[in-house]
Amino acid sequence: MENETAKSFDKHPHFIVREAEPFNAEPPPRLLRLSIVTPPELFYVRNHASVPEIDADSYQLKISGLSNRELQISLAELRERFSSRTVTATLQCAGNRRDGLMAVKEIGGEVSWGAQAIGNASWTGVSLCDVLEFAGMTTDARHVEFIGLDDVERKGARFGFGGSIPLEKGLSAEVLLAFEMNGAALAPVHGAPLRAIVPGYIGARSVKWLGEIKVKSEPSENYFQAHAYKLFPPGVSAQTVDWNEGLMLGEVSVNSAICRPQEGETVRTGKCTVQGYAMAGGGRGVERVDVSGDNGQTWTEAKFDADDSSRWVWRFWEAEIDLMAGEGQIVARAWDSATNTQPEDARAIWNFKGYMNNAWHRVNVFVS
Amino acid sequence: MENETAKSFDKHPHFIVREAEPFNAEPPPRLLRLSIVTPPELFYVRNHASVPEIDADSYQLKISGLSNRELQISLAELRERFSSRTVTATLQCAGNRRDGLMAVKEIGGEVSWGAQAIGNASWTGVSLCDVLEFAGMTTDARHVEFIGLDDVERKGARFGFGGSIPLEKGLSAEVLLAFEMNGAALAPVHGAPLRAIVPGYIGARSVKWLGEIKVKSEPSENYFQAHAYKLFPPGVSAQTVDWNEGLMLGEVSVNSAICRPQEGETVRTGKCTVQGYAMAGGGRGVERVDVSGDNGQTWTEAKFDADDSSRWVWRFWEAEIDLMAGEGQIVARAWDSATNTQPEDARAIWNFKGYMNNAWHRVNVFVS
Repeated sequence: MENETAKSFDKHPHFIVREAEPFNAEPPPRLLRLSIVTPPELFYVRNHASVPEIDADSYQLKISGLSNRELQISLAELRERFSSRTVTATLQCAGNRRDGLMAVKEIGGEVSWGAQAIGNASWTGVSLCDVLEFAGMTTDARHVEFIGLDDVERKGARFGFGGSIPLEKGLSAEVLLAFEMNGAALAPVHGAPLRAIVPGYIGARSVKWLGEIKVKSEPSENYFQAHAYKLFPPGVSAQTVDWNEGLMLGEVSVNSAICRPQEGETVRTGKCTVQGYAMAGGGRGVERVDVSGDNGQTWTEAKFDADDSSRWVWRFWEAEIDLMAGEGQIVARAWDSATNTQPEDARAIWNFKGYMNNAWHRVNVFVS
Repeated sequence: MENETAKSFDKHPHFIVREAEPFNAEPPPRLLRLSIVTPPELFYVRNHASVPEIDADSYQLKISGLSNRELQISLAELRERFSSRTVTATLQCAGNRRDGLMAVKEIGGEVSWGAQAIGNASWTGVSLCDVLEFAGMTTDARHVEFIGLDDVERKGARFGFGGSIPLEKGLSAEVLLAFEMNGAALAPVHGAPLRAIVPGYIGARSVKWLGEIKVKSEPSENYFQAHAYKLFPPGVSAQTVDWNEGLMLGEVSVNSAICRPQEGETVRTGKCTVQGYAMAGGGRGVERVDVSGDNGQTWTEAKFDADDSSRWVWRFWEAEIDLMAGEGQIVARAWDSATNTQPEDARAIWNFKGYMNNAWHRVNVFVS
């Protein structure tokens, strides 16, 4: 049964729906790898409640938590008062590649994502720093909280999805309040009329249907900052967790995935062309991608599609490797500009919420 | 036979000399872990030529590569014109823990470092950004090169050890031209009368005996930027290397090491107290350290000595783990604020120059 969200969204016929309501979906690997800028109908959707209906004409963005004033700004005022800015940025869900962690050990109550809970778009809006400067800030401001207009239910309470970023990040020119995606108006499913865009951070901080911005001295206490989207050690479970602990996710770690061939595909013996993406978080560059057909005994250095890239944008890569007949496995790993690389084994990363799987990406093929 | 360098340096009696001339030395793990601020006599020394004799009174720092002017500044002028600034920062050699890579496969012509080619000090000097602002810059400036007054010989040429950092980093307040270490004048072996301090970057960029600063449009062509201190893929050797390729090292990757017990030590059965350090590069924080006595089957979360830390400073940690009688191995790994973590196996990192070993640190003990 098609739900309201799926109906209102002109999704691609091959979009892989992981959950119908709230709507959660990702594209097939092959389609994701077709274009460095992901079309909206193939851009992953990670929602935590139904898409809210918002009247753009009467919409007001609230800015609060400041000592000196509390503001409400309409979309027209935002566009008029602040200069428009476009940033191309790749967003990646903290749960991207969760399927690889679920294969290690059960993870309860979370969406099983493949390696396509990631997408790249050019976002147009106004710089958060311009808006914060205009609004003024208290001297003890350290964090910027975003709260959405959606209606999430957790533990009996209803509230808008939210989270915060450090003020230092919030003042960086790349952080936007965006109303356009790839040159067109944002689709409701992607956060219309206005969403935060926080390049280099987990997708959850790029809050959709932005209703309120709060400048704070401490990180957000919203469920999705204080409970969810935290990394816990491998020994912690839903039964033993202390929610005051854990690493609040922010910048993403270096990651890469093979998009072609896909899992289970049959390929010919001999030279096999392998294609994928790689992404480094926090503005670090992807410097190298290694591909192996023998579980890392030997590696082939991949070639990037473009020589240079923006620090907020993923890189597409391609390599040719030799495969012997029979069951084969192709492995990929990336290195970032700080020489961080991906761990070999997903077992070393497993955590009960299933976040930040950046183990070597493995695709099993049949070689004939 | 004691050489000039060693004689002029009041080194600790337990300092481990890896090479007498040029002088290369690191402290024993146990002594390194005694104090969060490393005393100069225990601070690792990685030199590429003899310590130059420099007369501080006649010393002039040259600043060049600018369209509008070329400057010479004496130490007295530096101190007088610019406000003094102290930054506590951990420096780490790109070759730290090379011994672990050498155990995988031969690495020719490089110093075999343990896990103590790292140290932390409070550095006092002037901010590079203040000096650059005073000197003025061309609009196409993108990199800042540092050149030392030492006399290195490579491939028949003689030159000062050098390297560069991106201008963006050079303009960050934490980058210093330092004349003091831990509140006292810099020792000659540590770079007197003036050295660069580039927190969060490999130690090689903190050029000692600083003679010249050049603002450039491209990275330094100095041997130690264009040839050495580059990360090559595992399949590349000294025979096959193309020096135009490779990742120019800059920010360091997340790392940790066990300092107590030390390799080969005998410890009692039962609870064993494990102590070590952890460091994240590029201003990222160390968020968690995991310690295991069963090769990562189960992990114990370490406690940090201090709750909070500066983003440029390592963290000391301690954990209690259970060890069974017999031959045991203790393993440690750290996670940074971007959830980058250490790879399990040094074989996955091996490169022919032996840089950036951040595999899980392993210490073999005998439990009785």
